[in-house]
Amino acid sequence: MRAVGSADAVGVALALHGGAGRIARDRLGERRDRALREVLATLLREGLARLEAGASALDVAQLAVCALEDDAQFNAGRGSALTADGTVEMDAALMDGRTRAAGAVACVRGVRNPIVLARRILDDGRHVLLSGEGAERFARESGVELVQQAWLVTRERERELTSARAAGRVSLDRDETGTLGTVGAVARDADGHLAAATSTGGMTNQLPGRIGDSPILGAGTWADDASCAVSATGRGERFVRAAFAHEVDAGMRLAALSLRAACENALARVAALGGGGGCIALARSGEPVAVFDTTGMVRGWICAGGSPRVALYADES
Amino acid sequence: MRAVGSADAVGVALALHGGAGRIARDRLGERRDRALREVLATLLREGLARLEAGASALDVAQLAVCALEDDAQFNAGRGSALTADGTVEMDAALMDGRTRAAGAVACVRGVRNPIVLARRILDDGRHVLLSGEGAERFARESGVELVQQAWLVTRERERELTSARAAGRVSLDRDETGTLGTVGAVARDADGHLAAATSTGGMTNQLPGRIGDSPILGAGTWADDASCAVSATGRGERFVRAAFAHEVDAGMRLAALSLRAACENALARVAALGGGGGCIALARSGEPVAVFDTTGMVRGWICAGGSPRVALYADES
Repeated sequence: MRAVGSADAVGVALALHGGAGRIARDRLGERRDRALREVLATLLREGLARLEAGASALDVAQLAVCALEDDAQFNAGRGSALTADGTVEMDAALMDGRTRAAGAVACVRGVRNPIVLARRILDDGRHVLLSGEGAERFARESGVELVQQAWLVTRERERELTSARAAGRVSLDRDETGTLGTVGAVARDADGHLAAATSTGGMTNQLPGRIGDSPILGAGTWADDASCAVSATGRGERFVRAAFAHEVDAGMRLAALSLRAACENALARVAALGGGGGCIALARSGEPVAVFDTTGMVRGWICAGGSPRVALYADES
Repeated sequence: MRAVGSADAVGVALALHGGAGRIARDRLGERRDRALREVLATLLREGLARLEAGASALDVAQLAVCALEDDAQFNAGRGSALTADGTVEMDAALMDGRTRAAGAVACVRGVRNPIVLARRILDDGRHVLLSGEGAERFARESGVELVQQAWLVTRERERELTSARAAGRVSLDRDETGTLGTVGAVARDADGHLAAATSTGGMTNQLPGRIGDSPILGAGTWADDASCAVSATGRGERFVRAAFAHEVDAGMRLAALSLRAACENALARVAALGGGGGCIALARSGEPVAVFDTTGMVRGWICAGGSPRVALYADES
């Protein structure tokens, strides 16, 4: 289905990321390189079909992140990084650009899809961010699917924790091992609304109770129909200290920057604090942007009537 | 000590708040009106003396909030609002404008001064925000003073919870009862550095695990020597959805607004979401500003060589 000539469909768009870090061809290997590209391309095609059929940006961003949470290759949901205690504590956020309504969870355990829980919080409307046991109780009461801790933990993450403990290191995602991270989605629907969603297991060997940028509205996640939708990934503390996602929004809204310039400026402010990461973003028009200051970022985007574009390394456009 | 002629002391300043809400003369009563003014004036005088003696903005903001946490009149530390479970879960944040280093805690129980714990997290440097049991463990390990839950709970807060439960209402601070809320401090030291600190018990009858704007850098708390220091108070979810404190910073930095105009613009963005609250802020110069859209905000400020100014109601300058 071509968008040209269809006023409703003009400008629908979806962009995804699967984390930024030390992602290089020799580290990743051909098999994983191919698998990642296929996962993202499939999700982009499915998401575009939904958007072209009239689904909301919020639903499509949520569904894409939900699928990435279920994929154990990524540091979110199943396959999350492990804390210093060896536990899985997950963060996620979802924001609706139409009203800036938002839902987020922090340090939640035993939930299959933190982004679904974030959506329930958004729909409930009483609060924006719930954490820990309180969030888990809300999950039980709102019928969100619960899982055993063991289901969330993968062998690869256990090995990474062992290695991080031995080195006395707190690792972002899998950057030291060259593998993958936090996930996110930004979407624009046929009504011109934007949405952003982010989900993560945090950093390997992090202190239990640590909250990074992903569930912090304005840091890792932001959406406002007036400007843009942003989902970030990287060394969360620095993204919080730069109010990264809101800095992108403010750059467009207050300084009339283009989306790309606003993303680059915001990332420069993270870089000034020591750097490490990137983001995907969509402008009101549906224009997609991916910026990062690492050797790679797993990313992809698709626009109305187009084909999926997926890239992993810095030298790909 | 007059600041005039003393280059070191020019521009030191301190501003405090004790929450915004339905604060009116007939609700508060003369005795409490007087008591509040005395508390704030004393803290302002002590803080100014410390700043003039060379203390850092970070230390002075922390000490002022620490004293307000210990004062059971305010919704922070002892005297915190109670969750739907009748528990005390406290949030606090501290940000150093020199480096934008920050420390914050969310949903922490059994700690006497959450702002002291936030400072330990800032000084530790590994993470920015710790929550729940993980934050409590960090408190034990770093020697922060622990207290029994019962010590934190006051009769007045128990009565408020009973009344909120009966009405099926989630109350911000004590606005329905006309009493007081979240606390905050912003300071500028003799070296020109800024700092901001905020601490709260959240909302009466809130869901356990709920995190408001206070510990969210960019929402309730922000400090950057390049622009301003801000501490907010109000309906936290709306301040999060407006990225309030960072919007003030961005207004000055990206749109060249005055501090007052930047605060008013940011508050207008909160008001567009339903409103309810305010902030205190300091510019690089040390100029203090207090803005709010409620009937009152407990607030005070002092500048180099000056006397404390304290105000409670909207009709006071």
